[in-house]
Amino acid sequence: MKVIADLCVVPIGVGVSVSKYVAACEKIFIEAGLETKLHAYGTNIQGEWDDVFAAVKKCHELVHEMGAPRISSTLKFGTRNDREQTMDDKLESVRDKLGGRLPGE
Amino acid sequence: MKVIADLCVVPIGVGVSVSKYVAACEKIFIEAGLETKLHAYGTNIQGEWDDVFAAVKKCHELVHEMGAPRISSTLKFGTRNDREQTMDDKLESVRDKLGGRLPGE
Amino acid sequence: MKVIADLCVVPIGVGVSVSKYVAACEKIFIEAGLETKLHAYGTNIQGEWDDVFAAVKKCHELVHEMGAPRISSTLKFGTRNDREQTMDDKLESVRDKLGGRLPGE
Amino acid sequence: MKVIADLCVVPIGVGVSVSKYVAACEKIFIEAGLETKLHAYGTNIQGEWDDVFAAVKKCHELVHEMGAPRISSTLKFGTRNDREQTMDDKLESVRDKLGGRLPGE
Repeated sequence: MKVIADLCVVPIGVGVSVSKYVAACEKIFIEAGLETKLHAYGTNIQGEWDDVFAAVKKCHELVHEMGAPRISSTLKFGTRNDREQTMDDKLESVRDKLGGRLPGE
Repeated sequence: MKVIADLCVVPIGVGVSVSKYVAACEKIFIEAGLETKLHAYGTNIQGEWDDVFAAVKKCHELVHEMGAPRISSTLKFGTRNDREQTMDDKLESVRDKLGGRLPGE
Repeated sequence: MKVIADLCVVPIGVGVSVSKYVAACEKIFIEAGLETKLHAYGTNIQGEWDDVFAAVKKCHELVHEMGAPRISSTLKFGTRNDREQTMDDKLESVRDKLGGRLPGE
Repeated sequence: MKVIADLCVVPIGVGVSVSKYVAACEKIFIEAGLETKLHAYGTNIQGEWDDVFAAVKKCHELVHEMGAPRISSTLKFGTRNDREQTMDDKLESVRDKLGGRLPGE
């Protein structure tokens, strides 16, 4: 089962700056061979269900090891069995309806 | 690693009524021996990380089997390594600060 | 437009204990006359769209005033125009399918 | 109060294809003069609190008008009063820690 996910990890109890934890998680997703794309409020991840969720677990474990006593994450994840669809397909589908360009492109 | 999670599963492409899918997932969590408590916009789940996420996967598989071609879920999940904390502890902690009663109690 | 929402507020930069902020927000929802029900990973809120979102804004303002320099919240919110549905209706609908009782009842 | 938000709108009861609704909401954010950037599982929005939430409301109203009887959305939103921070700042901060490039760049 393929999944497209969006993860936002919030380390609690380590001050207001969280980018080093986000960067560490991003490395985990890359090293796991997952397709990933960071945005301003989380990161998209695409792959086989077990691979994606194993990486999410590693991310929580690592952020604890880095010193965060508490973590609260939000994950959106979508699956479908009617057809294959990638993250690029999803964007392309909206881009078409906006006349060929997304805002910011 | 213990986790307290909150899952909201939205089956897409099967009309506006989704309660039978929610009920089916709830049965999965109960059968998995997880502590679970449904609310009006999702369900709380508490247990070992691997058990909770295995049940979430089963839930997606079952909702597809029941006929939903597409599913979009939102999961919040929290871990901490500074101390043990249950779902009841979290509620108790807020209840204390509200003078011993939560709204609706 | 009526809305059923679920809010989880995470104050960042004020240590690991967040229950006093959650309690303060809960008071805002009660004082606003909104129906609200706390659970272990957020709180359900029901009411008119403008009332619910005004209360959510007050909550962010108050949590900042209480000393949190940064806040990250997750809100789920549902609207429908096919029929009226309350938070209790949603739970009742699942309860029916589980033989009259929800886990924990 | 400035806010950085991430919105994912799921129309329910209109089949599996949701891109036309997403595109319609994107137009609302652009017309409102908000900075917005679509990704594979939602869209980032940045602006003044009242402007962002007014646009989110318009989005729900429009998706209902377009024929969706039910909508379930997930919104993450962050505020801070310790310093100004844009969506670009957040990405830049992680980019730095990954040696100057984000995955996909």
